[in-house]
Amino acid sequence: MLTVAYQGESGAFSEQAGRAYFGARARLVPMESFKDVFEFATGHPSGFGVVPLENSVFGSVHQNYDLLLKHKLHIVGEVKLRIQLHLMAMPGVPMKAIRSIYSHPQALGQCEDFLRLQKNVSAVAYYDTAGAAKMVREEGRKNAAAIASARAAATYGLSILRRNIESNHRNYTRFIVLSRKSRRLDKAGKISLVFAVKDVAGALFKALAVFALRDINMLKIESRPHVGKPWEYLFYLDIEGSPAEERVLQALNHLDELTTFVRVLGAYPNGKTLI
Amino acid sequence: MLTVAYQGESGAFSEQAGRAYFGARARLVPMESFKDVFEFATGHPSGFGVVPLENSVFGSVHQNYDLLLKHKLHIVGEVKLRIQLHLMAMPGVPMKAIRSIYSHPQALGQCEDFLRLQKNVSAVAYYDTAGAAKMVREEGRKNAAAIASARAAATYGLSILRRNIESNHRNYTRFIVLSRKSRRLDKAGKISLVFAVKDVAGALFKALAVFALRDINMLKIESRPHVGKPWEYLFYLDIEGSPAEERVLQALNHLDELTTFVRVLGAYPNGKTLI
Repeated sequence: MLTVAYQGESGAFSEQAGRAYFGARARLVPMESFKDVFEFATGHPSGFGVVPLENSVFGSVHQNYDLLLKHKLHIVGEVKLRIQLHLMAMPGVPMKAIRSIYSHPQALGQCEDFLRLQKNVSAVAYYDTAGAAKMVREEGRKNAAAIASARAAATYGLSILRRNIESNHRNYTRFIVLSRKSRRLDKAGKISLVFAVKDVAGALFKALAVFALRDINMLKIESRPHVGKPWEYLFYLDIEGSPAEERVLQALNHLDELTTFVRVLGAYPNGKTLI
Repeated sequence: MLTVAYQGESGAFSEQAGRAYFGARARLVPMESFKDVFEFATGHPSGFGVVPLENSVFGSVHQNYDLLLKHKLHIVGEVKLRIQLHLMAMPGVPMKAIRSIYSHPQALGQCEDFLRLQKNVSAVAYYDTAGAAKMVREEGRKNAAAIASARAAATYGLSILRRNIESNHRNYTRFIVLSRKSRRLDKAGKISLVFAVKDVAGALFKALAVFALRDINMLKIESRPHVGKPWEYLFYLDIEGSPAEERVLQALNHLDELTTFVRVLGAYPNGKTLI
């Protein structure tokens, strides 16, 4: 059986992404931190990890980009998930009884508009969305609610008091699947890579030329200062294609000539978007 | 006197950024939301706004990029601030008396490592970091603390119990200064712009060529899906230069030919980094 690590408690969005990707054949294992997920996938030859990489409202999860650079793992797949947040409580508890609402700080932030309208209610930070739902159930709290996914409500037997309380409904997170083994990609999919260039005019343009000259499409680009190397920038790039294509291999060799550092983070099929 | 709007209560990081930029000559006005700041700056010909645009750990504040597109304001300056978070309480209150810690959800998230180690303490979300400090003072709470800036501690007469509890000490936020009037920039500084290209191979490369062919350096690039236009991408770009330079004007005219949409968000001098 496949083992897949994710950050959070059972019912977390990362678990949902992992389940959507692997289906019933995987055993999903909760971990406390993203770092633990990377370490699990690094230490288990047949294990996988699932982590969020970017959100449509909040941007890239830089912590996971940093962890990708620190570990020798490959991105082997992706899943895009719409983040729907619901308010849930013990069955039979009415809205007016709620005095505290528990969730992960980021989820509380995503429901700021809803929380502002609640009078005499405290929003309390918890380490995890699903963990907050679990706590409300385990302690049988009659005056508390959690903000988490519909899956967490089902997992812990809570009733949903208010649906879709997230301030922005176009809230999608892209999760990546990590493995020690790279994936063989015969058909064109997506290749994620990171490279650094010297901070001189035209350096990035020359680097991107290796793809443009070969009609390879770019899907995403983002620059970041290279921490500890003040005169360099890191560029995270997603391109369309497969390493099985001659022109893609040639482009990557060409990129090597023009940059101070290149790493292919993974090649994988385009992921589905789940609503 | 200049009037400068910012989001949060007195003592907020945005206020600190505004004060650093304008000095003693400005009156800083707190607002409830980023939207209010944009509306204030749009409605007051001699007013300004200060908002965060990107953070070194958490990435771009996409909400403010979206608000930049919705309003006809110009970026006229920038300030980079190191985000240092401290735990503060009423004078004389010891660490062991603290049962609740209040702060903005994002600040609670940034102090996750510290908060995990506290036993029998709830982390409670509040609309604003400085607002949490103000509440602890106004209610004279002896069992509560706030996470906020040193400035908030001074503003509300609170004692700092623990310094620099942020998990990542390389935590910088870049704030921008907004105005209805664009700034005349004679010396080379920074120009921020946004453009859209059709999703065809090489479209972004051609757009970037307008700068590379004229030896204009790029400082930042980030792509985002164009919400509501599924086949287009938006690119946010910072370049080095001034619109007073002929080659920059030519590059911008050339960019117009190659894109479906371009807007210069502002031209301004490079900002200082405050520690």
